[in-house]
Amino acid sequence: MFRARNLVFFIGLLFASAALAQQGPIAIVIHGGAGTIRKSDMTQAQEAAYRQRLEEAVQAGYRVLSNGGKSLDAVQAAITIMENSPLFNAGKGAVFTHEGTNEMDACIMDGTTLNAGAVSGVKHIRNPILLARAVMDHSRHVLLYGDGAEAFAREQGFEMVENSYFRTEHRWNQLQDALKQDSYGMETEQKPEEGSKQDDAGDGGNGDEGGGGGPDVDHLYSTVGAVALDRGGNIAAATSTGGLTNKRFGRIGDSPIVGAGTYANSQTAGISGTGVGEYFMRQLVAYDISARMEYLGMSLKEAANAVVMDELVKMDAPGGIIGLDHDGNIATVFNTEGMYRAWIDKSGDMQVKIYKDE
Amino acid sequence: MFRARNLVFFIGLLFASAALAQQGPIAIVIHGGAGTIRKSDMTQAQEAAYRQRLEEAVQAGYRVLSNGGKSLDAVQAAITIMENSPLFNAGKGAVFTHEGTNEMDACIMDGTTLNAGAVSGVKHIRNPILLARAVMDHSRHVLLYGDGAEAFAREQGFEMVENSYFRTEHRWNQLQDALKQDSYGMETEQKPEEGSKQDDAGDGGNGDEGGGGGPDVDHLYSTVGAVALDRGGNIAAATSTGGLTNKRFGRIGDSPIVGAGTYANSQTAGISGTGVGEYFMRQLVAYDISARMEYLGMSLKEAANAVVMDELVKMDAPGGIIGLDHDGNIATVFNTEGMYRAWIDKSGDMQVKIYKDE
Repeated sequence: MFRARNLVFFIGLLFASAALAQQGPIAIVIHGGAGTIRKSDMTQAQEAAYRQRLEEAVQAGYRVLSNGGKSLDAVQAAITIMENSPLFNAGKGAVFTHEGTNEMDACIMDGTTLNAGAVSGVKHIRNPILLARAVMDHSRHVLLYGDGAEAFAREQGFEMVENSYFRTEHRWNQLQDALKQDSYGMETEQKPEEGSKQDDAGDGGNGDEGGGGGPDVDHLYSTVGAVALDRGGNIAAATSTGGLTNKRFGRIGDSPIVGAGTYANSQTAGISGTGVGEYFMRQLVAYDISARMEYLGMSLKEAANAVVMDELVKMDAPGGIIGLDHDGNIATVFNTEGMYRAWIDKSGDMQVKIYKDE
Repeated sequence: MFRARNLVFFIGLLFASAALAQQGPIAIVIHGGAGTIRKSDMTQAQEAAYRQRLEEAVQAGYRVLSNGGKSLDAVQAAITIMENSPLFNAGKGAVFTHEGTNEMDACIMDGTTLNAGAVSGVKHIRNPILLARAVMDHSRHVLLYGDGAEAFAREQGFEMVENSYFRTEHRWNQLQDALKQDSYGMETEQKPEEGSKQDDAGDGGNGDEGGGGGPDVDHLYSTVGAVALDRGGNIAAATSTGGLTNKRFGRIGDSPIVGAGTYANSQTAGISGTGVGEYFMRQLVAYDISARMEYLGMSLKEAANAVVMDELVKMDAPGGIIGLDHDGNIATVFNTEGMYRAWIDKSGDMQVKIYKDE
């Protein structure tokens, strides 16, 4: 009798904890950058390549969540796929600095503990988001830079890759164009010459996606980001980028800055941004959306609209954000012509989009 | 008759614009770090040296304001004096990294335009705050790091100084103590051995203030900062630091991060913080105070108390802030035993304080 009651209690406990662990909605949203992305500038092959890679990334993240995994692991899984693809300005396919190197930034944040890890200016880390995660998990610090960050990576057992691993012909040509046009080097993001606006996705021959043959347009910020909500109600956000083509002077943008390009708070929302980083830093875009939700009682959509469509537009600052709130509501808000984006919402419905009006 | 009326109108216009330009209150507040600062740990000579330098710095800033100058120039003037003094962990007298170098961070922000400039990891710039100002005024960027920041400095005509310029025996000994105690190097801020807690201000013989003979106590974060309000209603904030003793891995703290250790908004307040930078970054301390004022209608003091005495204390994060609002109200709020601080308020009254209860 005593043992039977014990057994019933034990089985009840098992069900209760399983229910507890699985009760909340799950959802994930990712982006691959915002900017002047027009259907008329894209070939069908390019469009298909982007959609395919976005779908693969969002599904990889969702799989983590649906298996009961953590939102931190989900955003990391999605980002890693985009870092490994030459289509996006993160990891392989990162843009070049003025000096002809690839220097990358990444950040990840746990919305439940408000812990965060970030790296900037790393040159030999295949997946910068994994190093950001190690900074969060295995150091007392939030942000590490350059050689120091890589020394930490070696202590953590990271493999170092040659800087040439990140090279794609597409990005190299963008740098050459930028150098030709702008001797100062600080005044340009991506301003290729007329006539170079169309690269077939099959060009370059560097990797299975043709060396990142995206549209060569003015002001495309193809930073990548992801935000996820797991069954336990934990929101995580992450961002990874190669920064600006032709960047100089050890410039650090918004992506690795907690509250600027990346922020997560499981009480409000998780946010990842893409655009002209300096405005995101001055406006604290990611944190400001959370603050407006917390202090003004705005919804995620209202807060994101106020910041991206009002404040950033007032500053003449192109860009966008993805966001996901504690109830699993998703927002993708951008003041540019397009944003590579995809999500799987709490009902399991997947969407993959590029342009404004779709 | 027509000419006389014109003359009257013209004179009236002159008076009106003079009144407009000079109508607002002016005020300035500075800090030289927060931490475990107890009267029992300080000699009279040390205390006098700190009070004298704080007074000199706050008066230098106030002079700019009372001459009709800009708040940006006022905070810069005050910070420069503290950077030049070996008493504080900024400029000369900065703490040493794990590798035995001095690597400094600084940030300045214009609360009217929300423009900002910052540098991190610079080793050869006598006054890092002046380079942060140049980043704000002469680049499109907000944050530059290390060698790149110094390349920008050379283009801007900055003189390079040897890294040994920043060395003081006091700080060198702190590094040796930290190295002895902590082989990992990331777990310590300032943990000198027992018995080394008292250095006479006359020791060291390195510079006119004895090589920075401050109290060698656990967890003293002697970052410097300043916030000022000029007659035109413009608030500016600035922060400068050498970071953490024994810091490694290119760690970037909160001081150069807009919204974390430094923030200014002429509609709300200017803030400069000091403490364990990682918590300030995760909590967006400086911006959060402004956001609570803007969105919740809190006063500066209420908002600063909520963030420093509630949120930071919940995170077990020692530190403090100085703040100054658009009406010239001053707040100095810290959850530690002391904070080096001084201000001249809108009635022209000066205060210089060190301990909690004074």
